[in-house]
Amino acid sequence: MIDRSNPRIPAADVDSQFPDRWSPRAFADTPLSETQLAALFEAARWAPSCYNEQPWLFVYAVTAEDRARFAEALLPANRVWAPHAPLLLFLLCRRQFAHDGKDNRHAAFDAGAAWMALALQARKLGLHAHAMAGFSRQKAYEILGAPADEYDIMAAVAVGYRGDREALPADVAAREAPNGRKPPEAVARQGRF
Amino acid sequence: MIDRSNPRIPAADVDSQFPDRWSPRAFADTPLSETQLAALFEAARWAPSCYNEQPWLFVYAVTAEDRARFAEALLPANRVWAPHAPLLLFLLCRRQFAHDGKDNRHAAFDAGAAWMALALQARKLGLHAHAMAGFSRQKAYEILGAPADEYDIMAAVAVGYRGDREALPADVAAREAPNGRKPPEAVARQGRF
Repeated sequence: MIDRSNPRIPAADVDSQFPDRWSPRAFADTPLSETQLAALFEAARWAPSCYNEQPWLFVYAVTAEDRARFAEALLPANRVWAPHAPLLLFLLCRRQFAHDGKDNRHAAFDAGAAWMALALQARKLGLHAHAMAGFSRQKAYEILGAPADEYDIMAAVAVGYRGDREALPADVAAREAPNGRKPPEAVARQGRF
Repeated sequence: MIDRSNPRIPAADVDSQFPDRWSPRAFADTPLSETQLAALFEAARWAPSCYNEQPWLFVYAVTAEDRARFAEALLPANRVWAPHAPLLLFLLCRRQFAHDGKDNRHAAFDAGAAWMALALQARKLGLHAHAMAGFSRQKAYEILGAPADEYDIMAAVAVGYRGDREALPADVAAREAPNGRKPPEAVARQGRF
């Protein structure tokens, strides 16, 4: 399962699943099984959330028709590669708490935790997941038929097996590699800001 | 590493780390090693983010003095248990993108992904992590000396080995068990909202 083409070098002894997770753009169109689909959402389902609200909602496309429809909301830079993935989804989060209707300021944070769980489970299945901010929210609301006053749409995500990098447009292929990170000292500070 | 006292039953065949992660309140005061600390932040460091901005920042307390100071920002319900943990931290996210100064609407979402990575790495080390929304942001800004116009404070987190449940106040001890989740069909919908 370890991706030997991944050049990342951890700065500390950490579980390999973390540096091993990255966001390719070349996807094979190999369909996912129902078992794989269920595993992805099951991982997300167990994510932690404020008041155990579980504000996340995944609306997904696996049929050619649904994937084409979902792809219409993507910005052109993502539309050139993402529709090849066998699973496209939008990750929504509920703006208000179910128990009292008050604004949930942690909804996006908690949805981010659920997204990370899905991305890591994808790797356990030999898949990759790539989240995108580059989509039209207005178009996505229309396509999904989702209520904008109740749900925010935080990300579009493509999931699948890695495909042939050479099938990407040249400028996209040139960026097809795991990216780097800020140094550890930029992430954590002791005692004070 | 599997917690045999965890009664959760997954609804699908999923990597055990996801249902195995939960948020206890009884922590032992056993200190964390530098290696463990580094591993926690390293896992978070490799989280994905919009434009690879990496908006997360962990400000942490491990000394008795710092932990007592951080605990002052917690609400009373959390102050009864969280200060026993050997690591307390606040998770901040940068409101604006570094590259253009524009608002980053994905900052909290991405910080949530980093938090999930830290929580899962904690389990790999035999530790547990418990995120809290119950704290005074105003007090936390003061304690950390953090700029509220640049950073939001999304969560407080306690990390450590599990402690003795009987050491908790009776009402807290009564809730000391992994919680449940909505059914799978509440998490994912095909094609439309």
